Amino acid sequence: MEFTRPLPAYLVTRYHGWKATTYAENHAWYRRLADEGQRPRAMVISCCDSRVHVTSIFGADQGEFFIHRNIANLVPTYEPDGNHHGTSAALEYAVTALKVAHVIVLGHSNCGGVQGCLDMCQGRAPELEETSSFVGRWMDILKPGFEAVKDDPDMPRALEHEAVRVSLRNLMTFPFVKEAVEKGTLSLHGLWTDIGEGGLMHIDRRSGQFTVV
Amino acid sequence: MEFTRPLPAYLVTRYHGWKATTYAENHAWYRRLADEGQRPRAMVISCCDSRVHVTSIFGADQGEFFIHRNIANLVPTYEPDGNHHGTSAALEYAVTALKVAHVIVLGHSNCGGVQGCLDMCQGRAPELEETSSFVGRWMDILKPGFEAVKDDPDMPRALEHEAVRVSLRNLMTFPFVKEAVEKGTLSLHGLWTDIGEGGLMHIDRRSGQFTVV
Amino acid sequence: MEFTRPLPAYLVTRYHGWKATTYAENHAWYRRLADEGQRPRAMVISCCDSRVHVTSIFGADQGEFFIHRNIANLVPTYEPDGNHHGTSAALEYAVTALKVAHVIVLGHSNCGGVQGCLDMCQGRAPELEETSSFVGRWMDILKPGFEAVKDDPDMPRALEHEAVRVSLRNLMTFPFVKEAVEKGTLSLHGLWTDIGEGGLMHIDRRSGQFTVV
Amino acid sequence: MEFTRPLPAYLVTRYHGWKATTYAENHAWYRRLADEGQRPRAMVISCCDSRVHVTSIFGADQGEFFIHRNIANLVPTYEPDGNHHGTSAALEYAVTALKVAHVIVLGHSNCGGVQGCLDMCQGRAPELEETSSFVGRWMDILKPGFEAVKDDPDMPRALEHEAVRVSLRNLMTFPFVKEAVEKGTLSLHGLWTDIGEGGLMHIDRRSGQFTVV
Repeated sequence: MEFTRPLPAYLVTRYHGWKATTYAENHAWYRRLADEGQRPRAMVISCCDSRVHVTSIFGADQGEFFIHRNIANLVPTYEPDGNHHGTSAALEYAVTALKVAHVIVLGHSNCGGVQGCLDMCQGRAPELEETSSFVGRWMDILKPGFEAVKDDPDMPRALEHEAVRVSLRNLMTFPFVKEAVEKGTLSLHGLWTDIGEGGLMHIDRRSGQFTVV
Repeated sequence: MEFTRPLPAYLVTRYHGWKATTYAENHAWYRRLADEGQRPRAMVISCCDSRVHVTSIFGADQGEFFIHRNIANLVPTYEPDGNHHGTSAALEYAVTALKVAHVIVLGHSNCGGVQGCLDMCQGRAPELEETSSFVGRWMDILKPGFEAVKDDPDMPRALEHEAVRVSLRNLMTFPFVKEAVEKGTLSLHGLWTDIGEGGLMHIDRRSGQFTVV
Repeated sequence: MEFTRPLPAYLVTRYHGWKATTYAENHAWYRRLADEGQRPRAMVISCCDSRVHVTSIFGADQGEFFIHRNIANLVPTYEPDGNHHGTSAALEYAVTALKVAHVIVLGHSNCGGVQGCLDMCQGRAPELEETSSFVGRWMDILKPGFEAVKDDPDMPRALEHEAVRVSLRNLMTFPFVKEAVEKGTLSLHGLWTDIGEGGLMHIDRRSGQFTVV
Repeated sequence: MEFTRPLPAYLVTRYHGWKATTYAENHAWYRRLADEGQRPRAMVISCCDSRVHVTSIFGADQGEFFIHRNIANLVPTYEPDGNHHGTSAALEYAVTALKVAHVIVLGHSNCGGVQGCLDMCQGRAPELEETSSFVGRWMDILKPGFEAVKDDPDMPRALEHEAVRVSLRNLMTFPFVKEAVEKGTLSLHGLWTDIGEGGLMHIDRRSGQFTVV
């Protein structure tokens, strides 16, 4: 592992800070979580973006949320083709093994991934259209959503909102999700947060529009 | 969106708590993060597990870490085949667009995904070997690592450690990662945390073994 | 107080959330409750169980319910022997000082205390029969009730229901309760809730059986 | 059960409101809590007072806190004499069966029980000194604490604070508490809340004084 490096000192210091405070205050609980396993109540699918931490917004402590983070909080459709599908694997584990009660898709403002998709859809990003672009190919998941909002003057927000709707619809293509939703043991929730304003909106089930929480 | 539900009240309350405290205290900074974009110093690849929040361990505030979370903190090899690759897309965005200085792979104890892989490798999990198992196909990424540790008496820990090494080696198959590492603009780091003990180990670059931070 | 520890950070954050929202919205009312004293309409005797919060089930706001919680929502018989009787003290204060209009005994499903009593009565819990077992001695209050239901096939539910009946009967051994009930200034109510189903049953005064609310 | 009455209509209405909203949104989680049992992280010992609901202050949802409520949040000393001890039973169950990580004693302002004790100690409440007074005999637990604060001009607040300290000291007389605290698997916390101001203070472990959270 000659190509690796030791942990930067500023992170070592922070780790020791956590160990001496948060861990020390809660070690018996963490010990139990290790011994008895996790029992998270919800799965959250959110973006990798460094400005959106669901653990902060919802005051999550250890053990509460099973969190998958990818570019633009996207869920692809159900494709059991034997390839590696990280998002689908996380979803399958959360719903069938952990039996979470909620799956929450959390979108956000100023999303670089959504902006890239918008650029592609408007013909301004040839580099993202190349086969070799992982970001481009990942954002293809959102492309079908562009049609629905392409005349909305409030871009890229409209496409950010649509990203949450596309993910929610794709969630329902997974048989184990659909079945659990229909049985009533799983509920799906769509959220979107504004980074600068600290706002939070959720999808209204009747209109499909986002409304302030 | 008739199949969605409103946000549970306990999360609405918690959100308002965050808004009135953490957000209120930092709103000027969040405003800037929204206006000027993110500039995270590091990308962290960690597990979805509800018991391991890198934001807690490293006291992360908004804007510092670009975080991808998937089952068992795995990185697949470079495969620019035009399919959806969520992990590769996150990696590409972090290294080529955000130009992070570090990529940190954070493994952990009591990992359900690694246990599943171990069960497959030891012939005890036929259900995970089915083509339709997303978790099984995702954990295939780790399978080649099993050979290297199969005689280690300290299972599943040995395989959890190997998962970090496999991911680090796979990172180097991405041309943009290898190039940045060789130019010295990017460093790679392997970590593993013990949930119950709150311990943190990192890979020693010479021995390739994990040693206490 | 060297043996104490500071409040865990996750609770500090939650408290600030409550302060900024629920408290802020109601501070004038809380101010009055502090200045003028409490005037609760009912006393509720319920279990310590973390899954049964009467404040949630009955949407209780500050000032409405005087709540005593003990293992298995039990009321002992009247014993004015000069010893410490926490339940009797709470009852006396509620009925004679606060003059509540109702005393509600709220039982529930999946009760660990009732299960322990059942185990004792069926000779399967010698450790609970030891003099030094506080749980065992406390559950002795319910033991006389076992006879009445011991042939009921629906255990432990039958004993959970009986626990409510035993407590109601014991309530009537307190002179100040009996007197107020007979004068018509106090009414007694027996309830039982099913945690999983969210169901609520109450005692039918004629049959003494539980019936859906 | 002729002496009981049906549930008052206003509570029936509220219950149906809870069932249709909070329960409906969370029924899968409540179902799991019923099937798999509770795993509360903390036990809270607080007062029956209708103005102090720990579930509100700490945004507690189902499953998080095991709550014992008695007059003035008192814990008696360890007395394994074979009598009924409700508080000791709740404590024993929380620490030895549920293995909670924290025991939190929550005192509060405007406490009727503490005021009664103060009146007794200052010779102004002969009725509470009678053997037959359950409130008086219960508040005897706090009497030894009066000496320590009797010259404090800030009464009854000083005695309310002392009630928390007395309870914490008495907790340590229980062998199973002392052992768990010394092993580091249990931590004890002392809090006091001001009803009118919505303030929260905790005991400083060095000075033993209350300080703002």
